[in-house]
Amino acid sequence: MRALAAIDGAPSWVERPTPAPGAGEALVRVAMAGICNTDLEIARGYMRFSGVLGHELCGVVEACADARWIGRRVAGEINLGCGACELCSKRMERHCQQRTVMGILGKDGCFATHVTLPIANLHALPDALPDERACFVEPTAAAFEIVEQVPLDARDRVLVVGDGKLALLIAQVIATTGAQLTLVGKHAEKIAIARLLGIEVAERDSLPRKSFDVVIEATGSPSGMQEAIGWVKPRGKIVLKSTYHGPLTLDAAPLVIDELTLIGSRCGPFEPAIAALATGAVRTEALISAIVPWSDAIEGFARASAQGTLKVLLDMRG
Amino acid sequence: MRALAAIDGAPSWVERPTPAPGAGEALVRVAMAGICNTDLEIARGYMRFSGVLGHELCGVVEACADARWIGRRVAGEINLGCGACELCSKRMERHCQQRTVMGILGKDGCFATHVTLPIANLHALPDALPDERACFVEPTAAAFEIVEQVPLDARDRVLVVGDGKLALLIAQVIATTGAQLTLVGKHAEKIAIARLLGIEVAERDSLPRKSFDVVIEATGSPSGMQEAIGWVKPRGKIVLKSTYHGPLTLDAAPLVIDELTLIGSRCGPFEPAIAALATGAVRTEALISAIVPWSDAIEGFARASAQGTLKVLLDMRG
Repeated sequence: MRALAAIDGAPSWVERPTPAPGAGEALVRVAMAGICNTDLEIARGYMRFSGVLGHELCGVVEACADARWIGRRVAGEINLGCGACELCSKRMERHCQQRTVMGILGKDGCFATHVTLPIANLHALPDALPDERACFVEPTAAAFEIVEQVPLDARDRVLVVGDGKLALLIAQVIATTGAQLTLVGKHAEKIAIARLLGIEVAERDSLPRKSFDVVIEATGSPSGMQEAIGWVKPRGKIVLKSTYHGPLTLDAAPLVIDELTLIGSRCGPFEPAIAALATGAVRTEALISAIVPWSDAIEGFARASAQGTLKVLLDMRG
Repeated sequence: MRALAAIDGAPSWVERPTPAPGAGEALVRVAMAGICNTDLEIARGYMRFSGVLGHELCGVVEACADARWIGRRVAGEINLGCGACELCSKRMERHCQQRTVMGILGKDGCFATHVTLPIANLHALPDALPDERACFVEPTAAAFEIVEQVPLDARDRVLVVGDGKLALLIAQVIATTGAQLTLVGKHAEKIAIARLLGIEVAERDSLPRKSFDVVIEATGSPSGMQEAIGWVKPRGKIVLKSTYHGPLTLDAAPLVIDELTLIGSRCGPFEPAIAALATGAVRTEALISAIVPWSDAIEGFARASAQGTLKVLLDMRG
């Protein structure tokens, strides 16, 4: 099969055997896949990953020991726990220390015509969720992780810092909780999308200091963290959703003086994400910058890397 | 009255009028006071504080509108909230944005023969708690803040990083919860004190990575934080008890990947501290490096600044 892998710091076409599903696994024919910022970083050499790239997908099960899955449209969770350790036994497979991660760590990804996944990682997709939206299940799940970690309600003042595609998903997920939501960003076009999605956007300079119960740092830039610290109330919470490349340098004194809580947040639950995308509580049309045919995937990467681009989807259906 | 203030980056004798207690305040004649690392920093110019230094005290109430307090031995909470704001109304005076802080911010401290404090800040001391131990109420309260923020029990594996006087108080407070406690330090003499106090001490190099539910960073050094991150389990908690001078630089990726929670921790509740010091659950004899007569207070500061010193107490009773 044809696939995209990182070779010498760039995404490159490779020819690989179509994988055979092991016991408890399914073979998924990829329909569409989303390019995430993490993919761009991995293609450049982050994680030293040399396998097939990609971890945001929807597709159709072509082969599976459990015949009930065959023919079903699915999204797939990306972390593959060992199934045997203490963390896996506590339903914390996403933190299994022996885990592989599709397209990121020790496991081929979905920028290919086919990918295998454990049946336990599959989530059936409702008909109401077309492929273009289903590609957003994985990052939307990552956004739902926040509200699992920090339950929110109408009393909470919440600030999302950032206006990238993840920030725009996060803001929509926060909105489902009824919390008092504000977003602050830097890019006029992306801020316009936030407004289109009904999200209240604040001017950076008019944001009162120490006034939010929860601040979500989703800029991807270390400078976002110090700003986030400045906007959270004493004893408030900062959710760190950015993975920074390179060191974070900050004045940590306010963390102690104001007794702030900083919560790292990574992958999240698929079911609420699927439901929110299916009902339209989370909308994605405005987040799609391009849908690129699979044969043009390398151009798709270039497009995804360009300043101002939101989501680029690869279409393997043609 | 005679007092110690920071002048040109050093503690210096000053003559000040004995303060008059305002409405709702008490005048406390200081019996003993402890020198904290924060005092050393403030004396050097940190916080740009030019008032009387000192915030760890025990003393006797000499004057008070409420006559029931007169003659009582007391310790005093250091944060003075405005009493009118939302935070004060929520019993979060310690985080009041208009607060003053005794010996630290906008309020004269206890390195003086007398100090005033609001009655609401006073805690009566039991006879079972002699002055030498009562000087540890404030830092022990700061240690109890940790177990208010992170309730602990016998199932929790807890690591204290650091072997200074605050770390040794913290470890003893953690021990009162029944948690599985380990301390890791760098200084042979202080580690010996930890062992004397019945605390299990680990060799740094033999500590397994990602194995503690809660790690408490109390080294005072930014390098302690990255180490702490390495020792905590996925989804575990790090309590930041150090106030670093200068920036903290760290690789924040593990915070996100392992979904760690980092909790800043400052001042704490006095009542459990008084009880633990009175019963001997928290012991302080081994933490006292010197008790210095008030007239030698400047030498006491020099002693407190020297490498390897634990607590220096100033004795105003003579």
